[in-house]
Amino acid sequence: MKLVTFQTDHGIGVGAVGPKGIVDLSAIAPDMLSLIDLGAEGLSRASALIGAADKFLDLTEVKLLAPIPTPRRNVMCLGLNYAEHAEESLQAKGVKVALPEYPMIFTKGTNSINGPYDDIPFDASISEEIDWEVELGVIVGRSGKNIAAGEAMDYVFGYTVVNDVSARDLQWKHQQFFKGKSLDGCCPIGPWIVTADEIADPHELDVSCRVNGVLKQNSNTRNMIFNIPETIRHLSAGMTLLPGDIIATGTPSGVGFARKPPEFLKAGDLVECEVENVGKISNRVVAGA
Amino acid sequence: MKLVTFQTDHGIGVGAVGPKGIVDLSAIAPDMLSLIDLGAEGLSRASALIGAADKFLDLTEVKLLAPIPTPRRNVMCLGLNYAEHAEESLQAKGVKVALPEYPMIFTKGTNSINGPYDDIPFDASISEEIDWEVELGVIVGRSGKNIAAGEAMDYVFGYTVVNDVSARDLQWKHQQFFKGKSLDGCCPIGPWIVTADEIADPHELDVSCRVNGVLKQNSNTRNMIFNIPETIRHLSAGMTLLPGDIIATGTPSGVGFARKPPEFLKAGDLVECEVENVGKISNRVVAGA
Repeated sequence: MKLVTFQTDHGIGVGAVGPKGIVDLSAIAPDMLSLIDLGAEGLSRASALIGAADKFLDLTEVKLLAPIPTPRRNVMCLGLNYAEHAEESLQAKGVKVALPEYPMIFTKGTNSINGPYDDIPFDASISEEIDWEVELGVIVGRSGKNIAAGEAMDYVFGYTVVNDVSARDLQWKHQQFFKGKSLDGCCPIGPWIVTADEIADPHELDVSCRVNGVLKQNSNTRNMIFNIPETIRHLSAGMTLLPGDIIATGTPSGVGFARKPPEFLKAGDLVECEVENVGKISNRVVAGA
Repeated sequence: MKLVTFQTDHGIGVGAVGPKGIVDLSAIAPDMLSLIDLGAEGLSRASALIGAADKFLDLTEVKLLAPIPTPRRNVMCLGLNYAEHAEESLQAKGVKVALPEYPMIFTKGTNSINGPYDDIPFDASISEEIDWEVELGVIVGRSGKNIAAGEAMDYVFGYTVVNDVSARDLQWKHQQFFKGKSLDGCCPIGPWIVTADEIADPHELDVSCRVNGVLKQNSNTRNMIFNIPETIRHLSAGMTLLPGDIIATGTPSGVGFARKPPEFLKAGDLVECEVENVGKISNRVVAGA
């Protein structure tokens, strides 16, 4: 299933996208987090509702919001989780290149969550080094702690596309990444959550990012240093994961700051992030948005 | 006012602690976040209710929970915000001592929130380097972005005590601090929120930490590098703060890992963190908690 959070004149609801349009799932759950909380039963009821549906909303009639517009807590993100990106980043910073032995994890504030087609705010007085980072996002399906790698995939509810938009100047000035990663609107996600059953192998998906149509990042999730089970094992060690948690699994090489010369987003730019079989999000950078 | 979240056989409620005991404020708000959301009106109604109260709960009859048991998002924390602590930390890590020019900000997962008198879980298979960090916690009262330092104190709802319990091995292994700072139960806070009007000068408060009765940290908030207005100015630049946000303002020197030889908490230890005029929290480290 492709699960969406959508807005119409009547309000915000959760639905599933099929060939005939969106099936409203509000009879099952008022929002995406509540649907995730229902677990397998929620998906089974959704499936039945979709099968019996005779009313569909056209995708052009609704506005798609971030599938989880207000997460329960910050988005958890892996840094340097693709070898070529680790190399480009450390080289650009003049630091000795060494791949992380443990996943580097930081968070993005919930205020950074943005819709799949919404504008990314640009304010030069805050940052002039806004950069792109396409990532596969993993949505946690149920609560768990000390999860073994072999069990980890049972905790995955689904997948989404994340653009981990980063204010590089702030990221370096503040040393820890949180501030530079958490400007308002700097975490576009979506356009939907594809449920885990629809992705045969999440470690075999092309990930790409285009800026104004020009391909900037182009890799495959098979190149992750820490795969999804290892990431969940590390994250959940002594730390309870919650249903609806969003884990951004890291970005491949091709980000702006590591280019020669460095490139950053400016007002008017269009950033398109795509993960194979998951979807594509498309956000314009807009001054004053 | 000293605002508490308390638990009785009848459930969980929000209240105010006075000389005669706790006044139940559930007629005004079901929980602390809802009370904070009511802003000045909520406090004014609470004040009226306290003035008219003829029923009080004895503090021994209730269990005090973390004043905000489930924050809207991760706790935001300053690293190296006292010069002597920055020095001891960098020296212990063999890194050149340089005070931060911008506040270093990381987050603690909401799963780390713990009550003022609850046990801190100890699991040697996860971390053997559990350390203490007493801090003044600032509770944000209303939403704001790009807040000037001169206006920042208007956004402060109140204060609490935070023990930013830190798994040093994980903190260093994972490079970014989030994971080592976010083990379950590793953010005891409380015992209450003291509203801002009761603290004449939050930059003139003794902060101390005792382990098994032995004084380990002893400083004053006047020694912060970034004071509260500067912290709020930096944090809110391009990033919307939310009512109920918890900001831990950093710890002074005297933490365990920087001692010679290093000291860490072990099962059975009692950690008491105190901030003058705000309160004291007291947590035992317990294996299997």
